[in-house]
Amino acid sequence: MPLWTIYHSPGTLTAGERDELAKTVADFYADVVGLPRFYVMTLFHEVPADGFYVGGEPSGRAVRVVIEHIARRIPDSTARRRAAARLSRLLAPVMERHPDVHWEFHIDETSEELWMINGLVPPPAGSPAEQAWAAANATAPY
Amino acid sequence: MPLWTIYHSPGTLTAGERDELAKTVADFYADVVGLPRFYVMTLFHEVPADGFYVGGEPSGRAVRVVIEHIARRIPDSTARRRAAARLSRLLAPVMERHPDVHWEFHIDETSEELWMINGLVPPPAGSPAEQAWAAANATAPY
Amino acid sequence: MPLWTIYHSPGTLTAGERDELAKTVADFYADVVGLPRFYVMTLFHEVPADGFYVGGEPSGRAVRVVIEHIARRIPDSTARRRAAARLSRLLAPVMERHPDVHWEFHIDETSEELWMINGLVPPPAGSPAEQAWAAANATAPY
Repeated sequence: MPLWTIYHSPGTLTAGERDELAKTVADFYADVVGLPRFYVMTLFHEVPADGFYVGGEPSGRAVRVVIEHIARRIPDSTARRRAAARLSRLLAPVMERHPDVHWEFHIDETSEELWMINGLVPPPAGSPAEQAWAAANATAPY
Repeated sequence: MPLWTIYHSPGTLTAGERDELAKTVADFYADVVGLPRFYVMTLFHEVPADGFYVGGEPSGRAVRVVIEHIARRIPDSTARRRAAARLSRLLAPVMERHPDVHWEFHIDETSEELWMINGLVPPPAGSPAEQAWAAANATAPY
Repeated sequence: MPLWTIYHSPGTLTAGERDELAKTVADFYADVVGLPRFYVMTLFHEVPADGFYVGGEPSGRAVRVVIEHIARRIPDSTARRRAAARLSRLLAPVMERHPDVHWEFHIDETSEELWMINGLVPPPAGSPAEQAWAAANATAPY
């Protein structure tokens, strides 16, 4: 967690832009939110036009991002809108280079109690154990 | 939103049937629900038998649909059952041509506050701005 | 339901291990939870390193499992932690053979009212009709 799954038409994101996006997203959660960096996974799936329909028509110029948040819940409406806008700005620098590409994202939130890494229950948010995982950038029994 | 992801065994859906399904689904949300047509995305992923297990056995005759709803929440139990039955009937005409194919779908509902398109917050449900997006079949600042 | 989607780096799970995992998972839900065996679907997606980023870096040694539960909800915090630990132990025997592989899973829970199989509403949890579906390992009108 967080898990970003990015479906994109062939040619809409270069290899360099995929690197850039994955790094930007990991930086955000590690440096701003304070999560261990290895929590952040980004999966890219190229989907050809005959498998990617927008409004019922095959599209060769679309990006659809599905974000799953687990370790942190956003409590109220204002904070949720702000978080969405913040994540949108992570994507924007890349997407603005492709003004003809239609792009959309949404965030799903699931229970932190139903989540494990390397067979371990991740430490509580903000705990010393979580900070130790972040510092080592690896899991460890705690 | 809505995002339909359709995992299917090779040969269970022809190219024509994928077109047909994507169009049927977009028609439903645009004409019946009243959403902007471009909100509707349908992704098809062909999954070979050695990656598609039903009941622990590889299957070459299965379709699994994951539907994500964001912009509209279905309030009560009766309405939810009715909505599921309605969406099932969108799939049925195609699936009934393949009576040996096992097919299943479910709908996940996520927060409309955690959702953006082309860097914009989509307009409120039923608002004049949403209707303008629907009429133009495109986003626009509002 | 349950739907397990397993994203894995090339070479991290052999064909035999995919069989083994799919069977272990189906056995658990059928024998321990009591669900019809065919409810259990497991999808494997191999993701190359240039599409699979962990902590912002491409990874060739990662497994990410997304589990969707529909027919059964886990009520309280203790039961949820216990369920997660139980599912982790289904994965562990395979994952422990690959100690250099980073693996993570989470479970999402969605509404059983928004779920259908072969055009039918699945029978209520624990009902005689559900037991009949389990015994036949197939859907039937009820």
